[in-house]
Amino acid sequence: MNNKGVLTVISGFSGAGKGTIMKALLKTYDRYALSISATTRKPRVGEEHGREYFFISRDEFESMIAEDRLLEYARYVDNYYGTPKEYVVNNLNAGIDVLLEIEVQGALQIKEKFPEAVLVFVTPPSAAELKKRLVGRGTETMEVIEQRMARAIEESEWMKAYDYLLINDTLDECVKQLHETIQSQRYRASQCDELIAEMQKELKEL
Amino acid sequence: MNNKGVLTVISGFSGAGKGTIMKALLKTYDRYALSISATTRKPRVGEEHGREYFFISRDEFESMIAEDRLLEYARYVDNYYGTPKEYVVNNLNAGIDVLLEIEVQGALQIKEKFPEAVLVFVTPPSAAELKKRLVGRGTETMEVIEQRMARAIEESEWMKAYDYLLINDTLDECVKQLHETIQSQRYRASQCDELIAEMQKELKEL
Repeated sequence: MNNKGVLTVISGFSGAGKGTIMKALLKTYDRYALSISATTRKPRVGEEHGREYFFISRDEFESMIAEDRLLEYARYVDNYYGTPKEYVVNNLNAGIDVLLEIEVQGALQIKEKFPEAVLVFVTPPSAAELKKRLVGRGTETMEVIEQRMARAIEESEWMKAYDYLLINDTLDECVKQLHETIQSQRYRASQCDELIAEMQKELKEL
Repeated sequence: MNNKGVLTVISGFSGAGKGTIMKALLKTYDRYALSISATTRKPRVGEEHGREYFFISRDEFESMIAEDRLLEYARYVDNYYGTPKEYVVNNLNAGIDVLLEIEVQGALQIKEKFPEAVLVFVTPPSAAELKKRLVGRGTETMEVIEQRMARAIEESEWMKAYDYLLINDTLDECVKQLHETIQSQRYRASQCDELIAEMQKELKEL
């Protein structure tokens, strides 16, 4: 209907399984591109430039801000994190659906700039399950887990600002739901102004 | 997320293939129920009470209006047509997705009473294709075809009032798109107030 790609922002509690869902979505369907964030923080062991992040200097980042080349950005502690605009816009124009994984504040910034973006919040089926998954990872101290749970309380206040809420109970099911939700955006009448105008014109001319 | 069924109203130009799409949807997936309209007009040859319509008397119809037992109704020439409320509400409450095939004015009445209803407009890929399909049926006189095209012009003014626009180019594709569009309604955050409130409460209690 609309030949542009759909821009989808995915947020959710730490431990909700966003990363796994995105990977499965990219693997299962070939119409998605994952936007990679830029950051000024140093790469950690095993991280690769252009895979986890684009690792750039503070000067480069501040130029991008000045030149309005970021869709959204935020500063945490001493580092910047942001979404380069060019990659997203080029893919959308080529009809490719773009996925962004960003936190709540960034998601709302995106919605302001791209009202047609679809915001999806992913959550485990329950708070108890969320805690279980965080503990089950076995990679975090109890202190970190408590911080994440506290952050989840804050984030939960924003769930209503999202367009869709997906429960990641069964991975396959959740990936399918995400795909269907994104694809259905293409048929929103609000995205079809041109098509409607053309149909109206053509009907009158016949 | 929300255990209630989704109410979907399908409209579209005569010749868009609504009937075929609905039949295919009902046959392919087992989670839909088709609402049958009530009418005071007499059954035509081959029509069956409870299949094409519930054929009822004018008295019965007017009682239903008086008792607010219709979701929408309209009067064409000398006959009433309307959607009995009970069937729709019972199915939705049982978690079954209900399909209504009604014309534009009825669709807008439904949206007023059920803001969560999803309005889908089905169109052939072009006006020329619409005319081709109407002529191709071979069952209508040119006069009737011209009337339908004139009606299509009127209806096209309302396409923007719909939530979604589906192009019936390939039947299977259109049925799949309709199914995905309907199912994605279940994840709308606006439909998940209870779930969000519960998650917020639970997070704070953990």
